Amino acid sequence: MALTFADDLTARHRLPKQERDERRATMTEVPATMRQLRSLVTAEGELRLSVDTVDTPKPAAGLVLVRVEAAPVNPSDLGLLLAMADVSKAVASGSEDAPVVTAPISASVMSALTARIGKSMSVGNEGTGVVVAAGPSPDAESLLGRTVGFVGGASYGEYCLASPQMCLPLPDGASASDGASSFVNPLTALGMVETMRNEGHTGLVHTAAASNLGQMLNRICQADDVPLVNIVRRPEQAQILRDLGARYVCDSSEPTFEADLVAALRDAKATLAFDAVGGGQLVSQILNAMEAAIVPDDAPYSRYGSDVHKQVYVYGALDRRPIELHRRFGFAWGVGGWLLTPFLARTDAADLARLRQRVADELTTTFASHYTDQISLHQALDVQTLQRYARQATGEKFLLEPQR
Amino acid sequence: MALTFADDLTARHRLPKQERDERRATMTEVPATMRQLRSLVTAEGELRLSVDTVDTPKPAAGLVLVRVEAAPVNPSDLGLLLAMADVSKAVASGSEDAPVVTAPISASVMSALTARIGKSMSVGNEGTGVVVAAGPSPDAESLLGRTVGFVGGASYGEYCLASPQMCLPLPDGASASDGASSFVNPLTALGMVETMRNEGHTGLVHTAAASNLGQMLNRICQADDVPLVNIVRRPEQAQILRDLGARYVCDSSEPTFEADLVAALRDAKATLAFDAVGGGQLVSQILNAMEAAIVPDDAPYSRYGSDVHKQVYVYGALDRRPIELHRRFGFAWGVGGWLLTPFLARTDAADLARLRQRVADELTTTFASHYTDQISLHQALDVQTLQRYARQATGEKFLLEPQR
Repeated sequence: MALTFADDLTARHRLPKQERDERRATMTEVPATMRQLRSLVTAEGELRLSVDTVDTPKPAAGLVLVRVEAAPVNPSDLGLLLAMADVSKAVASGSEDAPVVTAPISASVMSALTARIGKSMSVGNEGTGVVVAAGPSPDAESLLGRTVGFVGGASYGEYCLASPQMCLPLPDGASASDGASSFVNPLTALGMVETMRNEGHTGLVHTAAASNLGQMLNRICQADDVPLVNIVRRPEQAQILRDLGARYVCDSSEPTFEADLVAALRDAKATLAFDAVGGGQLVSQILNAMEAAIVPDDAPYSRYGSDVHKQVYVYGALDRRPIELHRRFGFAWGVGGWLLTPFLARTDAADLARLRQRVADELTTTFASHYTDQISLHQALDVQTLQRYARQATGEKFLLEPQR
Repeated sequence: MALTFADDLTARHRLPKQERDERRATMTEVPATMRQLRSLVTAEGELRLSVDTVDTPKPAAGLVLVRVEAAPVNPSDLGLLLAMADVSKAVASGSEDAPVVTAPISASVMSALTARIGKSMSVGNEGTGVVVAAGPSPDAESLLGRTVGFVGGASYGEYCLASPQMCLPLPDGASASDGASSFVNPLTALGMVETMRNEGHTGLVHTAAASNLGQMLNRICQADDVPLVNIVRRPEQAQILRDLGARYVCDSSEPTFEADLVAALRDAKATLAFDAVGGGQLVSQILNAMEAAIVPDDAPYSRYGSDVHKQVYVYGALDRRPIELHRRFGFAWGVGGWLLTPFLARTDAADLARLRQRVADELTTTFASHYTDQISLHQALDVQTLQRYARQATGEKFLLEPQR
């Protein structure tokens, strides 16, 4: 992930040289090798997960090394980790010290994975831990000894490199559980509301809305008085959101879903959606419902539709089927990809600092995450455990603790 | 269509009061009634086309009345005119003076047409003719007596109202055939190139590229040195473009289409497409080919794809099937609707004047349109003629002449 944006929050935490040297001196020695979870797709159509012993990386200029205390198992991690393999057929092998799990990948999935065949990959988008080493640069060195939430792409290991711009220094007393999901979900949820304002919309739609991220978004929108239409797939998910005080909850398993959605959209005046599903007809249903909510029943017919722009950003791929757009929503529409990193890259420093400060200030309230299971690297390769977190069941959330 | 933009080209043609009065005096009397083609969808699932005698409209403040000399039969007109009826089953009725054609509409199509059931609609997006009356306003009055290309929404009739902002005064000596398509296609083609520049792309893709519009776009791109990848559906269409000197032509009926497209995109560095088809998998093929052209074969695997934004604007609906997006193109992508009128509305006055001046200057070269058939309003309701223009065959283009 290319990082080009500036960050002045880390500057606020810049330490005097003497204090930096003291911290460095009190830190534990970094071992030469470490354990790391790795994911490999073989040309024979097999996923191979392993806990390998690898060289501990050394931070180059402008990077820090984090001793990883905890890392969340998010849907976005599972895509890379499991490569859409059939985990119901997972088989354990390897030794107790170096466990291995293999699982078959279907031929149709393999055709989408050619670029990663034979390339053993590190896994884990984000995590939390202590900065134990820094390459030469003031931004990196200023973080020495601090507990940070970070994005690094290899957080399922004992140590992980990160860029200071992708580290969020945590307030004193923050636990590993508080900090593990302090970067991606909080800034993604805030980024959605920022995007809404930047692009001139006044209400939001969110799918897979009962997720940890969705719950954060609900708390932000309630605090900021932003109308939010929550779309879920099951009654128990709807209940989670209603218990949180959500005003608009539409359950796609209900026969009245489309009418419910139009009614909610008409009331919320929401013309921007963030969609984690990204397959099937949901994007289309949202755009058509937005158009139906905008156009009055007695409006004259227009083959061009309304002139109100309706936008859906797809930020996930929970459903791997193609997106099907049934166009009854006129010509004022857009569908596109949305990711956190490019959003951060195009956000100016002052706005970024404001967003990051809010995350730090509201870490255990607005941005609290809850985990049902804490597992070690080795437990992550236990077949039954793996099948459980692969299911992504509502209400279940796994936290990986690489030091265990 | 809401019009909010200013226009200073008409101001250049503003006439002194005396000359205006002289022109008004020499103009033929406007008759109280006129013939107009109308399209009706009945609740019983029938399309009913008729040539009705209706009151000639009187221009309110800020509008002009054009005596229509010629109007093109474009794909965008056929959508409204024919309402996706099965014209192979068209039946003529009515009288010689007031012909009527009816054709059945399938139940699935009807469900998309509920908003226009029972509403008799005027047809014809654009045309050319002489301004014979003007509502009180300097912009409208300045056009009195001038031959203009115009957009009015009812050009398939003897007279049609238009806004001065949607009129393009034609150079002296321009024929009806020169002027009939002087607004929509020329400004759409120029709008595509403007959009490319405004959004930071340096090359274009165009589908249904052998159309009149596509041929204009080829001439513009060759003059402006813009790499243009033309996508067509048949070998004879490919030949039309090669004869025009097009460098990149990809025929989707060829077995090598996808590879051809990747190679052309790699060379042209085109990351923006304008698509007239809008159904099936073409949008997806373009995005996937763009991504394949961007990512080198030996690049490391990234589940997020390249960070180069790939955009497809859909401006037509030649294929009524859903758009199917098979996402192998990462997260830096967008698909959206594009229409001329909103583009004009968001373009500032100086840029608009520049575009319109170019159309006037190059009316018989870059922006030349060719017609194979000239028909009257009554001939438009001749069943065999109707079936011919409904087919939209390559190389065939109909011009409606309402005064015949």
